[in-house]
Amino acid sequence: MSTVAHLINGEITLRSGRTAQVFNPSIGEPVRQVELADRATIQAAIDSAKAAFPAWRNTPPAKRAQVMFRFKVLLEANKDKIAAMISEEHGKTLEDAVGELQRGIENVEYACGAPELLKGEFNRNAGPNIDSWSDHQPLGVVAGITPFNFPAMVPLWMYPLAIVCGNCFILKPSERDPSSTLFIAQLLCEAGLPNGVLSVINGDKEAVDALIEAPEVKAISFVGSTPIAEYIYTEANRRGKRVQALGGAKNHAVVLPDADIDNTVNALMGAAYGSCGERCMAISVVVAVGDQVADTLVAKLTPKIRELKIGAGTSCGLDMGPLVTGAARDKVKGYVDAGVAQGATLVVDGRGLVVPGCEAGFFLGGSLFDHVTTEMSIYQEEIFGPVLCIVRVGSLEAAMQLINDHEYGNGTCIFTRDGEAARLFCDEIEVGMVGVNVPLPVPVAYHSFGGWKRSLFGDLHAYGPDGVRFYTKRKTITQRWPQRASHEAAQFAFPSNG
Amino acid sequence: MSTVAHLINGEITLRSGRTAQVFNPSIGEPVRQVELADRATIQAAIDSAKAAFPAWRNTPPAKRAQVMFRFKVLLEANKDKIAAMISEEHGKTLEDAVGELQRGIENVEYACGAPELLKGEFNRNAGPNIDSWSDHQPLGVVAGITPFNFPAMVPLWMYPLAIVCGNCFILKPSERDPSSTLFIAQLLCEAGLPNGVLSVINGDKEAVDALIEAPEVKAISFVGSTPIAEYIYTEANRRGKRVQALGGAKNHAVVLPDADIDNTVNALMGAAYGSCGERCMAISVVVAVGDQVADTLVAKLTPKIRELKIGAGTSCGLDMGPLVTGAARDKVKGYVDAGVAQGATLVVDGRGLVVPGCEAGFFLGGSLFDHVTTEMSIYQEEIFGPVLCIVRVGSLEAAMQLINDHEYGNGTCIFTRDGEAARLFCDEIEVGMVGVNVPLPVPVAYHSFGGWKRSLFGDLHAYGPDGVRFYTKRKTITQRWPQRASHEAAQFAFPSNG
Amino acid sequence: MSTVAHLINGEITLRSGRTAQVFNPSIGEPVRQVELADRATIQAAIDSAKAAFPAWRNTPPAKRAQVMFRFKVLLEANKDKIAAMISEEHGKTLEDAVGELQRGIENVEYACGAPELLKGEFNRNAGPNIDSWSDHQPLGVVAGITPFNFPAMVPLWMYPLAIVCGNCFILKPSERDPSSTLFIAQLLCEAGLPNGVLSVINGDKEAVDALIEAPEVKAISFVGSTPIAEYIYTEANRRGKRVQALGGAKNHAVVLPDADIDNTVNALMGAAYGSCGERCMAISVVVAVGDQVADTLVAKLTPKIRELKIGAGTSCGLDMGPLVTGAARDKVKGYVDAGVAQGATLVVDGRGLVVPGCEAGFFLGGSLFDHVTTEMSIYQEEIFGPVLCIVRVGSLEAAMQLINDHEYGNGTCIFTRDGEAARLFCDEIEVGMVGVNVPLPVPVAYHSFGGWKRSLFGDLHAYGPDGVRFYTKRKTITQRWPQRASHEAAQFAFPSNG
Amino acid sequence: MSTVAHLINGEITLRSGRTAQVFNPSIGEPVRQVELADRATIQAAIDSAKAAFPAWRNTPPAKRAQVMFRFKVLLEANKDKIAAMISEEHGKTLEDAVGELQRGIENVEYACGAPELLKGEFNRNAGPNIDSWSDHQPLGVVAGITPFNFPAMVPLWMYPLAIVCGNCFILKPSERDPSSTLFIAQLLCEAGLPNGVLSVINGDKEAVDALIEAPEVKAISFVGSTPIAEYIYTEANRRGKRVQALGGAKNHAVVLPDADIDNTVNALMGAAYGSCGERCMAISVVVAVGDQVADTLVAKLTPKIRELKIGAGTSCGLDMGPLVTGAARDKVKGYVDAGVAQGATLVVDGRGLVVPGCEAGFFLGGSLFDHVTTEMSIYQEEIFGPVLCIVRVGSLEAAMQLINDHEYGNGTCIFTRDGEAARLFCDEIEVGMVGVNVPLPVPVAYHSFGGWKRSLFGDLHAYGPDGVRFYTKRKTITQRWPQRASHEAAQFAFPSNG
Repeated sequence: MSTVAHLINGEITLRSGRTAQVFNPSIGEPVRQVELADRATIQAAIDSAKAAFPAWRNTPPAKRAQVMFRFKVLLEANKDKIAAMISEEHGKTLEDAVGELQRGIENVEYACGAPELLKGEFNRNAGPNIDSWSDHQPLGVVAGITPFNFPAMVPLWMYPLAIVCGNCFILKPSERDPSSTLFIAQLLCEAGLPNGVLSVINGDKEAVDALIEAPEVKAISFVGSTPIAEYIYTEANRRGKRVQALGGAKNHAVVLPDADIDNTVNALMGAAYGSCGERCMAISVVVAVGDQVADTLVAKLTPKIRELKIGAGTSCGLDMGPLVTGAARDKVKGYVDAGVAQGATLVVDGRGLVVPGCEAGFFLGGSLFDHVTTEMSIYQEEIFGPVLCIVRVGSLEAAMQLINDHEYGNGTCIFTRDGEAARLFCDEIEVGMVGVNVPLPVPVAYHSFGGWKRSLFGDLHAYGPDGVRFYTKRKTITQRWPQRASHEAAQFAFPSNG
Repeated sequence: MSTVAHLINGEITLRSGRTAQVFNPSIGEPVRQVELADRATIQAAIDSAKAAFPAWRNTPPAKRAQVMFRFKVLLEANKDKIAAMISEEHGKTLEDAVGELQRGIENVEYACGAPELLKGEFNRNAGPNIDSWSDHQPLGVVAGITPFNFPAMVPLWMYPLAIVCGNCFILKPSERDPSSTLFIAQLLCEAGLPNGVLSVINGDKEAVDALIEAPEVKAISFVGSTPIAEYIYTEANRRGKRVQALGGAKNHAVVLPDADIDNTVNALMGAAYGSCGERCMAISVVVAVGDQVADTLVAKLTPKIRELKIGAGTSCGLDMGPLVTGAARDKVKGYVDAGVAQGATLVVDGRGLVVPGCEAGFFLGGSLFDHVTTEMSIYQEEIFGPVLCIVRVGSLEAAMQLINDHEYGNGTCIFTRDGEAARLFCDEIEVGMVGVNVPLPVPVAYHSFGGWKRSLFGDLHAYGPDGVRFYTKRKTITQRWPQRASHEAAQFAFPSNG
Repeated sequence: MSTVAHLINGEITLRSGRTAQVFNPSIGEPVRQVELADRATIQAAIDSAKAAFPAWRNTPPAKRAQVMFRFKVLLEANKDKIAAMISEEHGKTLEDAVGELQRGIENVEYACGAPELLKGEFNRNAGPNIDSWSDHQPLGVVAGITPFNFPAMVPLWMYPLAIVCGNCFILKPSERDPSSTLFIAQLLCEAGLPNGVLSVINGDKEAVDALIEAPEVKAISFVGSTPIAEYIYTEANRRGKRVQALGGAKNHAVVLPDADIDNTVNALMGAAYGSCGERCMAISVVVAVGDQVADTLVAKLTPKIRELKIGAGTSCGLDMGPLVTGAARDKVKGYVDAGVAQGATLVVDGRGLVVPGCEAGFFLGGSLFDHVTTEMSIYQEEIFGPVLCIVRVGSLEAAMQLINDHEYGNGTCIFTRDGEAARLFCDEIEVGMVGVNVPLPVPVAYHSFGGWKRSLFGDLHAYGPDGVRFYTKRKTITQRWPQRASHEAAQFAFPSNG
Repeated sequence: MSTVAHLINGEITLRSGRTAQVFNPSIGEPVRQVELADRATIQAAIDSAKAAFPAWRNTPPAKRAQVMFRFKVLLEANKDKIAAMISEEHGKTLEDAVGELQRGIENVEYACGAPELLKGEFNRNAGPNIDSWSDHQPLGVVAGITPFNFPAMVPLWMYPLAIVCGNCFILKPSERDPSSTLFIAQLLCEAGLPNGVLSVINGDKEAVDALIEAPEVKAISFVGSTPIAEYIYTEANRRGKRVQALGGAKNHAVVLPDADIDNTVNALMGAAYGSCGERCMAISVVVAVGDQVADTLVAKLTPKIRELKIGAGTSCGLDMGPLVTGAARDKVKGYVDAGVAQGATLVVDGRGLVVPGCEAGFFLGGSLFDHVTTEMSIYQEEIFGPVLCIVRVGSLEAAMQLINDHEYGNGTCIFTRDGEAARLFCDEIEVGMVGVNVPLPVPVAYHSFGGWKRSLFGDLHAYGPDGVRFYTKRKTITQRWPQRASHEAAQFAFPSNG
């Protein structure tokens, strides 16, 4: 069984370390192993990054961007290969893996605009013959810690932008599906990135803690669950690091009586069950405004959920693959059990699914709950599986109150034709990413991704304009030149700009 | 003796609380007392802020800005009165107090541009018939904790911008010189600010901790010393607050052999001794490149330091007043003692100064050290007094290494006529605010204030463009409308923008 | 009878020139006269502007903005006085005059943000050790020619922004209602504007031609009718001037069946009959989608038009005053005659109106035409009077085709509750300013005003961000410094940035 | 002999038209011919553009950008082939042709950022519950007319940006060296551009006039000589088109006594004689401050000019090739004759050059004049050949006066080490593109290219941010939604935002 290694200083490196198994969740068996970095390995990556920084920092942004232009070409040329690597280890369908990669490529495209994105602001005559301008300079060595559910996209949210801003980057991806992540990083090296500017370190908590504790690491971007996000945020922050830590979600879709119901149902199917619900932007709660809406939704969703095409992610034409691990599958099943126990109506029960030929795979069918209420664990907690809950309310205002009261505030959407309802929702909902008739309002690459409340710890969102600010620090210069033949008196008072 | 009270919900409020004495440092005697808020008082302020928030948030930015336009007028009309209040309690000269206020007014002017500053970014056709835009929404109730050395300016860095962005603000100023701060806040109320949008709470650590712990407070801006900055940053951060905490400084001025030496000397005099050196942007170290530069500087600085006009801040025509407290005076004196003990050459000794008529005032004369080296405490630590240290180096590169090795990175400047030297310095120095022939490179109000390294904890600098980002959170909306007569199929794959 | 003079070099100046009468249109009698500048007078203004330019250009933008801050205060303090001056000479109601002035003040507020608005873009390392930035520099002496219908607002669209950008400005307002314009300009001088930076020249075509021909005048902003706009644009352009010339309009309001009909009717009443329709953003055509909408609109508009309160503008509580001149009144009346002759249904006939006590005033009542068709002159031409035309169409697409086929493209609006209809309209309508349920979509001061097609000649719209670009020219600097101890080879090939 | 044809609607098209000869200037013989389009051919291109516009306009910017990403790859893959095509017909050296192409590719890279560049500005609550935003929409069919001297780069300044903004583009390149231009356009089609979005029409004045007169063409970008620029600007402008017309130049390099003289000499050699001086940014005048500077420059330039390696552009390792035509060569020679006749000192005479093996080529050696004065034709007019003039002045101020008095204001530069001199020069020089120790300050692709005075007609510079504004028109939307259960009264007064 082969071992997935690290990428350090431009080379694939195996050290005699611990390993973990990497499964194909569709068949429920390990397909390879991954080495788990120890502190010395992390330090080697940090050292190579530190050494590469001065030259990379001084490389003009337009030249740094050339690497990203070539990276995009290589990613597109290897799209199918990468999708297959993702599907094999994660379980998501090939189409879904391609979609993930495509969104990641869009972040590379955004990074190609580095010279535009790094522009500072210049003022002539900020005072008499005094000019002032700002410059956005790189931080140095920065790190990213990314989750299993988007092994291609989430790393691509981070390092292309960090690197094009002049930083050196150390990535610790999920150890569950490390192959595509490593392969993509190798493509960036192939695109001409100098050695040491990007390292990939496979590992577990030991690696995370080493990154948190390393004084050379100036910033950490994290995507994962809220408890870990909070841990990393607090621990890294108090060591003087800049951190953005994205955590969990419970994304509600509000459906108003005037919604285009067939499109809404289709949208909900994809948003709730796509990728088995293992997305931080997945819709897991439908808030139906009025019983008629709820009844119609149940009637139209039920047969579609029953007809979901489920199988090995690496097959074609499917709607859903397996969950990522047996533990994940069991945890989701436990939520369904709890929902029943707590009194919700289980309209569709996905617990019994067996996929022929993949009997050991980590599969679950789609489940649908109606009459869910806010005290139930299936409402309060992030299930991260193919389970959709319907909550019934009497008004848009009640729907909004529900959402604003939830601890998470990642994404949400509303289905309606009504301009006023949409505007009110967008204005007052306490959620960072809002869709109007768009079920998964993941911002495009030139906007920024981030939730509110306990879905994100930090000031700045991921990628896009906020990403540029996150990966740079502001320097402000104030300049005047001594004027020949003039003599200036000492100024003891605090200077004003008059 | 009168008592300085709090401003809560638009009213001046005294509660039966603890008090502390407020001194006139020029005469070394208490002139009034200030009440120290307990937790109930803080909570009353928070409650009023929370109540005021929904209406203020929904007030159009252009209308919120009207209050700032009127505030500017009132500040200018009360300039002399405010300056006198500052000088009496802080000790700085009247001219210096006016200068401080003027810089604060410039922050109010910047806040007047709220509609421009709050613009989000809009993309038509982010996807087919899909629009996407960003909106910068206020955080809610936010707080500021400000130092004694700029009782007018530093609060004005914070709350005008926070408030014009739609937040409600609770200010806890220094308890050493609270009068001008409170009076200025009252002027903002007079300008038409709704009750509860701004509260001023006088207090000490109890008040600080109450703000840190209050779940309703969403963000804290702090300016003070590095240990407190780090404490507030860590404690507030781990409670989920957004924090920017500005701490100490050790600002170096590099003087190259080609500098316009007379202007440089004048600039250094003001930057080192103005306001007794009690400024986080004060120059406390001169790095002379070459002994000839050093010798010339010593020769030209010495008589000027000896001739500093020092007296009660409230008099006119002075260069320096007293230090803020007896303890501060003693601490600075202790640094001078230590410098001598550690082997630096004390060229001018300000320790013996007596100001006639103000014998009990907290005065120190200006001191100048030559041949200071990096292991001395007068080099490593922030003295915050009228003490200037000269370090001699052999090259610009050595000067820059010195600065980059220091734990602080607030401000710095270079004196030269040479374009290349200035550019190299600006590019590679690890300091957030850089002056070229500008000794105190405090950014103008439409840029942002912030140091690097242990001079600032947080991602975003104070006031200016970063201030707007600090006091708002990003919301990203993605919108499409269902199209009549078209039917869209469910999409299970992760959506790309194609 | 008093004579309205010129403002040149900070002084009110009368020269022995031609004069014209200024009427009070409510009583139909001249109330004063206005001097019409000859070429020598224009030249005197130009000379003073040219002399003032170098110092004003070098005044820091933040300091230039101070004049605008004070100007705003003075305008607000004189609001009633100015409104009375406008109403007396123009005839619009006092409330309407106050509204106009308020919008003008908002342009002054925008100008207060000069330091922010003038920021250039800075790139470090545009090439290796090469920096590049842009600077927006003033043009020099620029001129504005403004119409009678907004004697306060339209000049305030222009000169505050032009001046705060560092230019000197010569204003030639309408000779029909010159008093408020001159008074407002005097307030700007009172606010501290240096002499020569703003001149006001009253005059007619001779003055216009002198400004067009003067080589010292670098740019002209014009608002008026399309034929004059085109004349000025072509003539000034071919003399190397920068020109923005805003002309006529025919603004359509589309009403869909789902519109909130009572609000729509109210909106249309104000937009069609406010200020007697003498606004370039007035709604003059309603496009009713479906006969039911049209019938309802006619039924609800008719009594409201009949009940319009019409009288001397200087009275209180009115809806409409007189037209500006007898000629204007007769011209509008002629359009009503033509509409009847061409077969439109005259639902309400405003031609017979007599205002008791103001029998000689230039009054017309509100008129309403139904069943108007596109070949009629009342449809094709701008009437600029209180006449509203209803066109009936069968679909939104037909309504949009109608608008896109018209020669003008200034403003338009749609009344609907439907998000999709609004988005389609906003996207594809060939009009520069679009309202959704907003009948007069005059952009706020921090956006820009401008029509498409033959409603505006020039690349840049008026005021707001485009105004800043119009009143400045771009300079791009590319800078490197020779590096000590390095020698660079001659480069014969065209340089790339690698 | 082959014939260079047109590219219309995605196809290479020959029509039975007039032709002109295309020369290889290195051998002085025609190598092929080019068809000159008649009006019917132009109309065919316009028709295809008009037909392609609606779909292209509605293609999301991110998708339009994909074509540009692929275009960049194809341009790089064909770099050598394109350079050879340029050199053969233009005569410039291969290295120079590669340099030109590289700069053009940078404009394609900038166009890849379309989604970022097209962002409008969004304001929530511009008024109560009123939102307002701006959108930059494409113009429709636009045209470019480009000169012989940069057959690759100047077209790439225009159409990538115009097209990515959503326009359809018709290019009329120079008929002297059409092959590379056409080939590059074909590469864009190969990159996936829909038919009709880009057409290339070869032709002469007939084609130019047809474009000027065609009502479907909404904008023209032109680069060439000032008389033609002015003609096109005036004629197209008065037909309602948006125009930017870049004309001639006389670029001065100021050399101060403190300049790094060897680097300066090298820089001047490349900037004056590179591409035979046939660049609108070529340095044609050196302003030496002080006789010592002038004498040194003459001494150091003379041998380098004599040693210029001159030969057929298609050879390797050369400094200069031939001029573009025999007429151009004779015109430049005539200027040298005139300089001698008018009393300038001809230090190096390039008139007698014969290139062995290329005796019929249009060659001239480099010439150097000293003691040039401002009334000479070699000072006043653009020579566009390898002739450098030295003017001697006594001060920087005198040098700046000279430049500011010249009719052209395209580019200029200063050589100095002094920060103050550079800043003064950058601030006050009346020239659009300024270099500090950069002899050819052509702005990078993310800034904009444009001269002042009679070097550019129009408001907006070429490419970069101004290019985006030039190729789009601003639309401003103001939106509110009717609120259920509320009724709004009619508003007759002009609406303010309060």
